[in-house]
Amino acid sequence: MDAVVLLSGGLDSYTAAAIAKSDGFVLNALTIDYGQRHVREVEAARAVARALGVARHQELHVDLRGIGGSSLTSDVDVPRDRDLSATDIPSTYVPARNTIFLSLALGWAEVLAARDLVIGVNALDYSGYPDCRPEFIEAFEALAGVATRAGVEGARFRVHTPLIRLTKAEIIREGLRLGVDYGLTTSCYDPGPDGAPCGSCDSCLLRAKGFAEAGAADPVITN
Amino acid sequence: MDAVVLLSGGLDSYTAAAIAKSDGFVLNALTIDYGQRHVREVEAARAVARALGVARHQELHVDLRGIGGSSLTSDVDVPRDRDLSATDIPSTYVPARNTIFLSLALGWAEVLAARDLVIGVNALDYSGYPDCRPEFIEAFEALAGVATRAGVEGARFRVHTPLIRLTKAEIIREGLRLGVDYGLTTSCYDPGPDGAPCGSCDSCLLRAKGFAEAGAADPVITN
Repeated sequence: MDAVVLLSGGLDSYTAAAIAKSDGFVLNALTIDYGQRHVREVEAARAVARALGVARHQELHVDLRGIGGSSLTSDVDVPRDRDLSATDIPSTYVPARNTIFLSLALGWAEVLAARDLVIGVNALDYSGYPDCRPEFIEAFEALAGVATRAGVEGARFRVHTPLIRLTKAEIIREGLRLGVDYGLTTSCYDPGPDGAPCGSCDSCLLRAKGFAEAGAADPVITN
Repeated sequence: MDAVVLLSGGLDSYTAAAIAKSDGFVLNALTIDYGQRHVREVEAARAVARALGVARHQELHVDLRGIGGSSLTSDVDVPRDRDLSATDIPSTYVPARNTIFLSLALGWAEVLAARDLVIGVNALDYSGYPDCRPEFIEAFEALAGVATRAGVEGARFRVHTPLIRLTKAEIIREGLRLGVDYGLTTSCYDPGPDGAPCGSCDSCLLRAKGFAEAGAADPVITN
């Protein structure tokens, strides 16, 4: 059964895709180049797609720098060494990003006659982004039913979020069990010119915490 | 008060924007070049934005030909002289288009601290697209509340659809009353190389029917 999987080149989406594959889905990977400062993740997504053996890999470009509003899509500095237990939503939040991504995934799914979308959102070891929470996913599923021809004709779209209630360590353990090669992934929001992770953005901190708690070495760091 | 208005260069979105302006909104126009075969509507949108005196005009590009699935974004022929009373959804339906458009509008609205989106959808003299119906709009409003930082902080986004229950003739009469210059607009899905409307696609047929019933001349045809 075909599924459209949002694949960023990061750790979470690769793991979510590997879980979907092990559940029997045929993977159609969708990668969005949205003008993010860490655009090298698009290259990582290509390597991840190859490693996963996806049926199709579609890249779409939509330059969200035009609307800005995030330190990932503007010249505002990415926050460093932030307290991850803080409850405020940091400047790396990209307004409506997952709504935009899932909308594009929905369009492609309808073309492919797929009814299953997969997204690697996580509402536990995360930065507090509103569009990573279960209530967002449920609202999107409700929308998908009335937004599409397929929905009007009775199809029910499902948005699979296999990571949503896992800790980062649990995600990594599950990925390693499934043979995920985390050496292909990139998580840093603001890598150096050589692609090296900064080690201090939210995404680097969450990744390091995850590998530490999983008792595993991060191949990106140790290589 | 700022509003983000989806502006295509067609008749409906111009009229919806003119109504929003007359209601006192400051207009921030968003035009999406999505790889549509009638890309000349993007140029029309620029002229319309100038005529409306918008505060900002943002163009975003996202090439939906990558996912196809519509005669507007693939090489499939646009249907001609279709029976507009037919209840099937024609091939000009673009999967998830208005979901994608409203998602982008939502992102920009959040950046602008705007809470109002305007879209010229119409569920009466239309082609039966699912994402032009009130139930779609309501589901999107519900989604917007949980998808965004602003929503989490208590803001309520509203999607204004001033045309949704008007006939095409009523839309045109209201536009003319507000001083809309329909000579700036383009509706045809498949214009000739000189930009001339084909006269037989759904969009041309609905426009002609509207002007006829409004007892007005279409300046695009008579020029």
